[in-house]
Amino acid sequence: MIRKPEVLARKLGLNFSQPALFIQALSHRSSGSRNNERLEYLGDSVLGFVIAQQLYQLFPEAGEGVLSRLRASLVNQTVLAELARQHNIGDYLILGSGELKSGGFRRDSILSDALEAIIGALLLDQGIGACQQWILGLFNDKLAGLKVDSWNKDPKTRLQELLQSRRKELPVYELISMSGADHAQTFEVKCSVSINQQSTVGIGISRKKAEQLAAENMLNLLTHQNA
Amino acid sequence: MIRKPEVLARKLGLNFSQPALFIQALSHRSSGSRNNERLEYLGDSVLGFVIAQQLYQLFPEAGEGVLSRLRASLVNQTVLAELARQHNIGDYLILGSGELKSGGFRRDSILSDALEAIIGALLLDQGIGACQQWILGLFNDKLAGLKVDSWNKDPKTRLQELLQSRRKELPVYELISMSGADHAQTFEVKCSVSINQQSTVGIGISRKKAEQLAAENMLNLLTHQNA
Repeated sequence: MIRKPEVLARKLGLNFSQPALFIQALSHRSSGSRNNERLEYLGDSVLGFVIAQQLYQLFPEAGEGVLSRLRASLVNQTVLAELARQHNIGDYLILGSGELKSGGFRRDSILSDALEAIIGALLLDQGIGACQQWILGLFNDKLAGLKVDSWNKDPKTRLQELLQSRRKELPVYELISMSGADHAQTFEVKCSVSINQQSTVGIGISRKKAEQLAAENMLNLLTHQNA
Repeated sequence: MIRKPEVLARKLGLNFSQPALFIQALSHRSSGSRNNERLEYLGDSVLGFVIAQQLYQLFPEAGEGVLSRLRASLVNQTVLAELARQHNIGDYLILGSGELKSGGFRRDSILSDALEAIIGALLLDQGIGACQQWILGLFNDKLAGLKVDSWNKDPKTRLQELLQSRRKELPVYELISMSGADHAQTFEVKCSVSINQQSTVGIGISRKKAEQLAAENMLNLLTHQNA
């Protein structure tokens, strides 16, 4: 059963003057040629901009690196899918029969794309001001929960704290290789964690730098996956 | 000699109500703590949004992949540095003495960052409408020169055309490895070009797919470098 898009629009606090745009935003590419791929592209860019601007204003003392990491922690597939689930967007998706059977309405990528497409549709329908307001409402709790302090720490510390908060074993760092002449050595370090049985690699001009890079890569892996 | 920022602002058609923001946008981090790093972060996001929206409207038939590639072809360090040079932004940069001596005002990364920072400063000073208008003026020739057709082609064809347009030798594709059982083989292909003596790798479920991915990676390499 496909539920009525206007019901979802009302729940989301949206009132489209061009309802066809909203329907298109809910239409996965498996449903046909009038799908949400272009709207998702548009929504992705406006979402990135609105969150970037908001973080800039919220954290006047934060450097560019911290702001970028904060944004990546908010604007990623996992968080967007979580927000889409909170609003039951999956129940209203328009999917082709194959995706419907395989449970596409539950998939992170499809949910996240649909939410971005809704944002793109809203931009086209009502302009950047209304779109910005709606995005900030959607992300209100996430923005309020941000602790900038934790993003000022170095990657190894942040990875350790993330794993501790999930009550998982600490990461293991191993030197894989050293190469180059004495004055220009390169170090390659592997970072392994038990949480996902995965490892990442960092390459740097010192062992410490290589470890930090490997930790940073692992953080990216863990925060962009459903680990 | 440091030239007067207001002269540059006038040349750029900008009239800041908060000139300090414009001065900050010209200040590389080597010059002190009140530098352009946060403004660059902000400008990068607004630039991405404005160009994404413009491409969406200019090319109603283009799919999401084409739009993304078009945007990447416009919003990258090489193009931004080129635009910065056209407007002599390097002459007005505020650099620390080390960067000044080593010719930092000529470096792509510093020029590109400064241009993004100017966009960020403009957003703060005059809002998104004025900022959008200025960006579209800045990119006017680039946008007018876009040929969407060339972006619909597959990566191997695009790479070949790019190299031909630069009168360079064609790429060489080599099969590096095949692995996996018969029904689930993985192919690894290396793409090498003489232009930069570099190579990229693609991994796919067929040799053809692996070649296309390797070509795509090479295109990214060539369009994001000063090749």
